Amino acid sequence: MALIVQKYGGSSVGTIDRIRNVARRLIETKNAGNQVMAVISAMSGVTDKLIGLAKQVMDNPPERELDMLLATGEQQSIALLCMAITDMGYKARSFTAHQAGVHAYGSHTRGRIANIDPKSVIQALNDDYIVVCAGFQGVNKDDGTIFTLGRGGSDLSAIAMAAAVKADLCQIYTDVDGVYTCDPRVVKEARKISVLSYEEMLEMASSGSKVMQARSVEFAKKFGVVFEVRNSMNNNPGTIVQEENSAMESIAVRGVSIERNQARVTVSGITAPVAYTSIILAALAEAEVNIDMIVANTANDGVARQSFTMNMNDLGSAQAALKKVLPQLGAKARLETEAGLAKLTVVGVGMRSNAGVAATMFRALADAGIATGMIATSEIRISTTVEAGDIEQAARVVHSAFNLDQVNA
Amino acid sequence: MALIVQKYGGSSVGTIDRIRNVARRLIETKNAGNQVMAVISAMSGVTDKLIGLAKQVMDNPPERELDMLLATGEQQSIALLCMAITDMGYKARSFTAHQAGVHAYGSHTRGRIANIDPKSVIQALNDDYIVVCAGFQGVNKDDGTIFTLGRGGSDLSAIAMAAAVKADLCQIYTDVDGVYTCDPRVVKEARKISVLSYEEMLEMASSGSKVMQARSVEFAKKFGVVFEVRNSMNNNPGTIVQEENSAMESIAVRGVSIERNQARVTVSGITAPVAYTSIILAALAEAEVNIDMIVANTANDGVARQSFTMNMNDLGSAQAALKKVLPQLGAKARLETEAGLAKLTVVGVGMRSNAGVAATMFRALADAGIATGMIATSEIRISTTVEAGDIEQAARVVHSAFNLDQVNA
Repeated sequence: MALIVQKYGGSSVGTIDRIRNVARRLIETKNAGNQVMAVISAMSGVTDKLIGLAKQVMDNPPERELDMLLATGEQQSIALLCMAITDMGYKARSFTAHQAGVHAYGSHTRGRIANIDPKSVIQALNDDYIVVCAGFQGVNKDDGTIFTLGRGGSDLSAIAMAAAVKADLCQIYTDVDGVYTCDPRVVKEARKISVLSYEEMLEMASSGSKVMQARSVEFAKKFGVVFEVRNSMNNNPGTIVQEENSAMESIAVRGVSIERNQARVTVSGITAPVAYTSIILAALAEAEVNIDMIVANTANDGVARQSFTMNMNDLGSAQAALKKVLPQLGAKARLETEAGLAKLTVVGVGMRSNAGVAATMFRALADAGIATGMIATSEIRISTTVEAGDIEQAARVVHSAFNLDQVNA
Repeated sequence: MALIVQKYGGSSVGTIDRIRNVARRLIETKNAGNQVMAVISAMSGVTDKLIGLAKQVMDNPPERELDMLLATGEQQSIALLCMAITDMGYKARSFTAHQAGVHAYGSHTRGRIANIDPKSVIQALNDDYIVVCAGFQGVNKDDGTIFTLGRGGSDLSAIAMAAAVKADLCQIYTDVDGVYTCDPRVVKEARKISVLSYEEMLEMASSGSKVMQARSVEFAKKFGVVFEVRNSMNNNPGTIVQEENSAMESIAVRGVSIERNQARVTVSGITAPVAYTSIILAALAEAEVNIDMIVANTANDGVARQSFTMNMNDLGSAQAALKKVLPQLGAKARLETEAGLAKLTVVGVGMRSNAGVAATMFRALADAGIATGMIATSEIRISTTVEAGDIEQAARVVHSAFNLDQVNA
């Protein structure tokens, strides 16, 4: 008998009919001889409605009270799902974060999971209940203060709960069949990837593949939780994410991610002082600009330049923040910006043992006449910026250059 | 510095504007130099909407899950009220039943309060917060299972919380100015009563004055909680309910309650066995018929008859239940029923020391040509049934006979 955790997002439980559909899936899994736990989000739209109510009261509601308010969305959906399961003749029991022993800390509206005491949940599983836990929330262990976990919080709840109950598998149900070698809307030959390592999933998550937030993948990696990204609307097998193994290394590149709406900021003519990097990064951090790629260089005459990429939305804040510190960077320091960029990334743990990945990638782009800009690499990833208008063709030629359209590539 | 608990029902927090109104009242009370705690219900309409959602899933949802669902109504209103208080520049903190230490037991949808551990609440009061607690709910101390407290549960929450924090006063805000000598829609001379004893309030609560449920008054009596019934839409002083004192005894009758939609069932010709009363009462209890007045009599020949009053809605169930046991009560046992009745009750602790209350009451009714039926009394109460069509006139003549239209009567 396996113990399976299934996570369903807001759209999967967005109507009473969809809640019934989830109930049927849980029951099928149970009838296949498993212990079953669901971790679910609020019905889609409910969270927005609650935020709307709060905004009617005041523009910036205190975050503690916002968490108190928003946590009711999941509390409603878990109760309704348990009713649907009961209606189909099976035993079900719902658990709030408090009841499930999900302890959190940190900041309101973006809490972090401290630990989970799953005693009651395990008891209910052993008593043959289908267990339904509220995702997206945790409580302070001492006084029960409620924290919501921020974006992607329900995935994190599911992965953390799977770790706590030592589940055999955590299935993350979404509206896609799994992780693809590239966005199928861009590259029609894109294939679903059967198995990925945590590292590959992490690089893809941070490179524009929006299936899951990086922090949930990091949590799964840390605690060795094997998870599967699946589609809640069909029964197709999804993408399994697990520890790297030797079979994975034979494949140099697993997928191509694209990220649009990128902008570049360059500070050039830097002559003083030595600590200029920390001055620049501190200014950007203070302005809450999330920078992505960093390229730094110093010419022989000691004049330095640094370039950063970021989302277009952050460009204004970045410019304003850097203008303020320019005088500290030398008399000739100046700012250049470039909007209208996109980022192309290839990911694969096999890069470590497969030479020439970068050469293949840039040859493919050059053959297609696509100019590349900034380049950044990690052990299992190569990223480059291209003009926004080139990104789809770039994705297609690189996808093809690594034979990603071929099964078992 | 006094500690004041204020309870607001669903209509008092039914819109964002009304929530702001409650926030202002709490702040006024705080600014008058008091520590302030609110106990509130769900916004009116929210509970019905949630029940509607549950009914979409199944006709008879499991009550544990219904409680899980319904408790979100109060959790939302406490968060919104704290936002409104914060928006006006004051510190506020919301508490679910779990956070406020309200421990419950018993049956779902009609839980009972076991005890309250108000540690966190008292800390917040001492830290100068306006505290806002969710009414109508409690949790199992061991596993956090949520219980709603059933009809009148928010009043009970407020009284129990006032007892736990040793509040100086518990104000129950409603849509009426207080408890009246009679329903002002029936007796236009009816006056608001300034002070009542717990016993009087209890008798009036169980005799048709719908201001509060008897169990909240009983709880207040048991723990000596002084409470005041007030109107949330104005600043008029309300009715204070407290321990009986000697001043109260000088007034024979404090109020006249009427209850409509009454029916009578009589079992006559009872000849066997000795235990017939328990057979009858067990049958009615099993059918969940709430009986009110009981009149039992035995003739010299040993043939007994018993009559009961009940709400019209229960008459069908009562008839069905009693028909089944008639054969056990003797060969000549038979059932009579009478619908279309009403009940008139006078209440006053002063009856104990004022002779002739019953005589005055029945003289007034006789002078008005009103026939009375069953009569029941307690130490501080006299009730009689009259024809439904006579009840309003009966109330007026009795109200007048005891001079209840005169101030300080």
